[in-house]
Amino acid sequence: MATKVANQPLFPMPFPAIFFIFSIFFGFGITLSQAASQTRHFKWEVEYMFRSPDCKENLVMGINHQFPGPTIRANVGDTVVVELINKLSTEDVVIHWHGILQKGTPWADGTASISQCAINPGESFTYQFVVDKPGTYFYHGHLGMQRAAGLYGSLIVDLEEGKKEPFHYDEEINLLLSDWWHESVLKQEVGLSSSPMRWIGEPQSILINGRGQSNCSIGAKYMKNMEQCKLSGSEECAPFILKVKPNKTYRIRIISTTSLSALNFAIGNHKLLVVEADGNYVQPFLTSDIDIYSGESYSVLINTDQNPSQNYWVSLGVRGREPKTPPGLTLLNYLPNSFSKLPISPPPETPKWNDYDRSKNFTYRILAAMGSPKPPVKSTRRIFLLNTQNKMNGGYTKWAINNVSLTLPSTPYLGAIKIGINDTFDQNPPPETYPENYDIHKPPPNGNTITGNGVYRFQLGEIVDVVLQNANTLNDKHSEIHPWHLHGHDFWVLGYGEGKFSAAVDETKLNLKDPPLRNTVVIFPFGWTVLRFVADNPGVWAFHCHIEPHLHMGMGVVFAEGVDKVGRIPTHAMACGGTAKALIQNPTQKP
Amino acid sequence: MATKVANQPLFPMPFPAIFFIFSIFFGFGITLSQAASQTRHFKWEVEYMFRSPDCKENLVMGINHQFPGPTIRANVGDTVVVELINKLSTEDVVIHWHGILQKGTPWADGTASISQCAINPGESFTYQFVVDKPGTYFYHGHLGMQRAAGLYGSLIVDLEEGKKEPFHYDEEINLLLSDWWHESVLKQEVGLSSSPMRWIGEPQSILINGRGQSNCSIGAKYMKNMEQCKLSGSEECAPFILKVKPNKTYRIRIISTTSLSALNFAIGNHKLLVVEADGNYVQPFLTSDIDIYSGESYSVLINTDQNPSQNYWVSLGVRGREPKTPPGLTLLNYLPNSFSKLPISPPPETPKWNDYDRSKNFTYRILAAMGSPKPPVKSTRRIFLLNTQNKMNGGYTKWAINNVSLTLPSTPYLGAIKIGINDTFDQNPPPETYPENYDIHKPPPNGNTITGNGVYRFQLGEIVDVVLQNANTLNDKHSEIHPWHLHGHDFWVLGYGEGKFSAAVDETKLNLKDPPLRNTVVIFPFGWTVLRFVADNPGVWAFHCHIEPHLHMGMGVVFAEGVDKVGRIPTHAMACGGTAKALIQNPTQKP
Repeated sequence: MATKVANQPLFPMPFPAIFFIFSIFFGFGITLSQAASQTRHFKWEVEYMFRSPDCKENLVMGINHQFPGPTIRANVGDTVVVELINKLSTEDVVIHWHGILQKGTPWADGTASISQCAINPGESFTYQFVVDKPGTYFYHGHLGMQRAAGLYGSLIVDLEEGKKEPFHYDEEINLLLSDWWHESVLKQEVGLSSSPMRWIGEPQSILINGRGQSNCSIGAKYMKNMEQCKLSGSEECAPFILKVKPNKTYRIRIISTTSLSALNFAIGNHKLLVVEADGNYVQPFLTSDIDIYSGESYSVLINTDQNPSQNYWVSLGVRGREPKTPPGLTLLNYLPNSFSKLPISPPPETPKWNDYDRSKNFTYRILAAMGSPKPPVKSTRRIFLLNTQNKMNGGYTKWAINNVSLTLPSTPYLGAIKIGINDTFDQNPPPETYPENYDIHKPPPNGNTITGNGVYRFQLGEIVDVVLQNANTLNDKHSEIHPWHLHGHDFWVLGYGEGKFSAAVDETKLNLKDPPLRNTVVIFPFGWTVLRFVADNPGVWAFHCHIEPHLHMGMGVVFAEGVDKVGRIPTHAMACGGTAKALIQNPTQKP
Repeated sequence: MATKVANQPLFPMPFPAIFFIFSIFFGFGITLSQAASQTRHFKWEVEYMFRSPDCKENLVMGINHQFPGPTIRANVGDTVVVELINKLSTEDVVIHWHGILQKGTPWADGTASISQCAINPGESFTYQFVVDKPGTYFYHGHLGMQRAAGLYGSLIVDLEEGKKEPFHYDEEINLLLSDWWHESVLKQEVGLSSSPMRWIGEPQSILINGRGQSNCSIGAKYMKNMEQCKLSGSEECAPFILKVKPNKTYRIRIISTTSLSALNFAIGNHKLLVVEADGNYVQPFLTSDIDIYSGESYSVLINTDQNPSQNYWVSLGVRGREPKTPPGLTLLNYLPNSFSKLPISPPPETPKWNDYDRSKNFTYRILAAMGSPKPPVKSTRRIFLLNTQNKMNGGYTKWAINNVSLTLPSTPYLGAIKIGINDTFDQNPPPETYPENYDIHKPPPNGNTITGNGVYRFQLGEIVDVVLQNANTLNDKHSEIHPWHLHGHDFWVLGYGEGKFSAAVDETKLNLKDPPLRNTVVIFPFGWTVLRFVADNPGVWAFHCHIEPHLHMGMGVVFAEGVDKVGRIPTHAMACGGTAKALIQNPTQKP
């Protein structure tokens, strides 16, 4: 089945042509043979370990002594069963399966305070869910900032056995990207919650599959004031090398679970053909580099058609914030070259961090592949979510949505709503819009931001438009990029724009033809993004900025739909707080 | 009521004489007037804060923005009600009331896995208990190593209003002693649980009421290679000064909540009259200094009868381990002298760390005051607890009792035993003795140490003797001091001895005449200690080495007695793990 690309000339032209042919030829997931779906069992212990992910020893949160955690691979239709055992001493834990829709199993979404009671030290919880869509996903902690402590791993869903992707590749490589601080996550968290707030600053390193370098670089000769790393390859911080054979096509799955950083990914001399975003096929397009925000995943194809006697840089740099982190570097290692053979030219340079036009240009190119599900033509509900940075009483810095900064309750919403107790969170939903005269180009007027834990409730099946509206932060003429991630759904990204969204002006410009389906989408500085989804998945779902410190500071909302249609919630998911109390005192409320 | 001591000469003679007169005159707690008991309410939030307890900034666990936590003062008979709110992000929490017997309220003992479900983030738990004995107590975290993170404070129980202590003093000063590391407690914990084990090392500083100095000393001129601290007095690490007026008698309450260190306390030029230990009156005796082990408390009286134009050193040094920590220093500040006036002579020198004869000499002097409750003449049950350090499979270092290293279950014993579920911990009790031929002078023979969570069960009212038997550690010719603390009871310390306890030889030497009542007692290296208590307090009670890393490594046992007589356990104390499941599934098991 190997595509003959050996004698092909350089990109860009012939490469996409071949892909399109394959697309047309195979369509999406044509069945060649049908295999029965499987149940894939995993038994995981979560614990802290001493590791040196960037050559400096630190604590990382790992699974079964691994960091990042083990990669799950399953086929569409499989049931994944993870028995998660909390081996931490004093901390609770949960794991969220990022991008998995959890249809029929909302209690397995792994969000503390939302879908389940966090797992206490010594306890275990069994996540069981069906993976019903092929794609590149991941999993991560979703309590406090445990993701930033290293609790993450990849989750790859292949097509059913015998089915083929709508593009060809010979082999694949999986890259899980993260950023890493030397300061403990506990100190980061407490600093963010302090008055005055102590910002976490820029990361000390970018990790590729849990490996990076902070105080040296493998590309030091191209940098100022940086030492060349002396690594044998066996160190915990030795780079993860992309070993490839010449003249093959590789699918590189790229996942970003960064705590903060927007990254730019490029490979020297090799163009990238983007084919998948967040587990959805996109119209393939060629690019020299991709921007990837926290919570996103991409698949890109490369042809290893360059001079096979050389290796090539794989480069990751920070965008969207003024970078103070050395680029994450590793090698595309053409076998049988030694991986210690450094490229002859410098690593690809990360585009200027604040060249937002370039960022937008990339993002706007992501469109749904032919044959993708189309959005309903009209929404039945529209909510506006204004993103602001605010100061609360006492000088605490918060992020707020429509002036409400999310503080999660201790009793999970899902169980509370299901059994009908109403004293564990605010029963008043938060505002669905913000004052018309709000000036998004000015720092927020002070004073009336509140913390809250109310829920946006949707009718089951409701077609919801969300207008994410960005605004000025607390600093003059300053606005940041935020990648928003929705649990339990993919959504169509109908459009992006500058300034304040105006229904009258902007409505007509929305893309209903080929909007991409995603689970994570950015809002650009001072801009807006409109997304649409069908509230057809009974459960309670987080929708939040995927930047870990921003969520910690309240940048999220909670959606609920059709909770009365949710099946029997496992007792363990409700055995805490108000739901435990209610269930113990009043067994008639049993799920 | 002030004793006339103004013109008294130096110690030692007249001082104790006066005390004895007072003892005889007043007896214990003579009622002058009777006041109604009160309920004292506290609302506490536990959280991490940035503090510089020893001039280096770090995270400490505090209560209501205070470190150490607020001091509770109550009178005998009062009810203390503490609503404890967990404001930590990912960690559970509990608080143990060290020395409080919790008669009728075993669920308020504050031991995770034993008396209650730990409090989840965002949740609260209300501790309510009666303080029925006057004395010097404290409280502290009892989950993981949260005590070492700074979660502690003092709890002082005064006599009923109008009653008088059996000794006179004009004023009192309360000193809560602790040791402090710059390494995070999380790293300490993970290191201890690693293979090979990473020992926490000696503390960077000794704190007096949460204040100490690590990289400088206020007594630097008497030390090698130490800088003089430049402190104005307003710093978080400025020493807690003992301000006194000349020619008065002060009661100094001294509590040790150290994680590791045995301390020696002395005041330059002032003798100490020991009058209380662990909330029990002792036969007053004069001493130049006291040894205080973690978990112990003392009251000493001093007369401020020295040259009033001078201040005097208060000195704390490490004993029992080779000290690498600068002495904890502060001043006895004779008012109106400035507290910045340093004494003219050097601070009292801490006795040699391994002069165990001196340590024993001090400890053996602690005897019950006249009129104290006497022990029953005979025990009805005797258990031997051999203390060993062992290596487990995989190279993990543990402490074990009769070859079992305690690993607490996730479901608290109290609720589990009360409602009769038997799958949450080992139903087989651990061994009550150890092999007769065990050689306590050799490192333990390898191999068969196990982890376990079984319980020693006593008949209600049983008179229990415990023989704590020390032994050689993993290192040749090495044995350590361990302070063992019992929850829910005071015990009589019947005796100490060298080598292996021999019933035939040592039994007759036990002190049944005036053994001190305590809640914490040490075993000396290669020695034994015998204690007796009446198992008359329905509940489940920890008995463990109070050295935080030792308990973390398994150095403890669990006692249970009369759990069927325990009243209704608050739902919240059982709303986790196996008890939550049982109560939700089978409401007939409701407490």
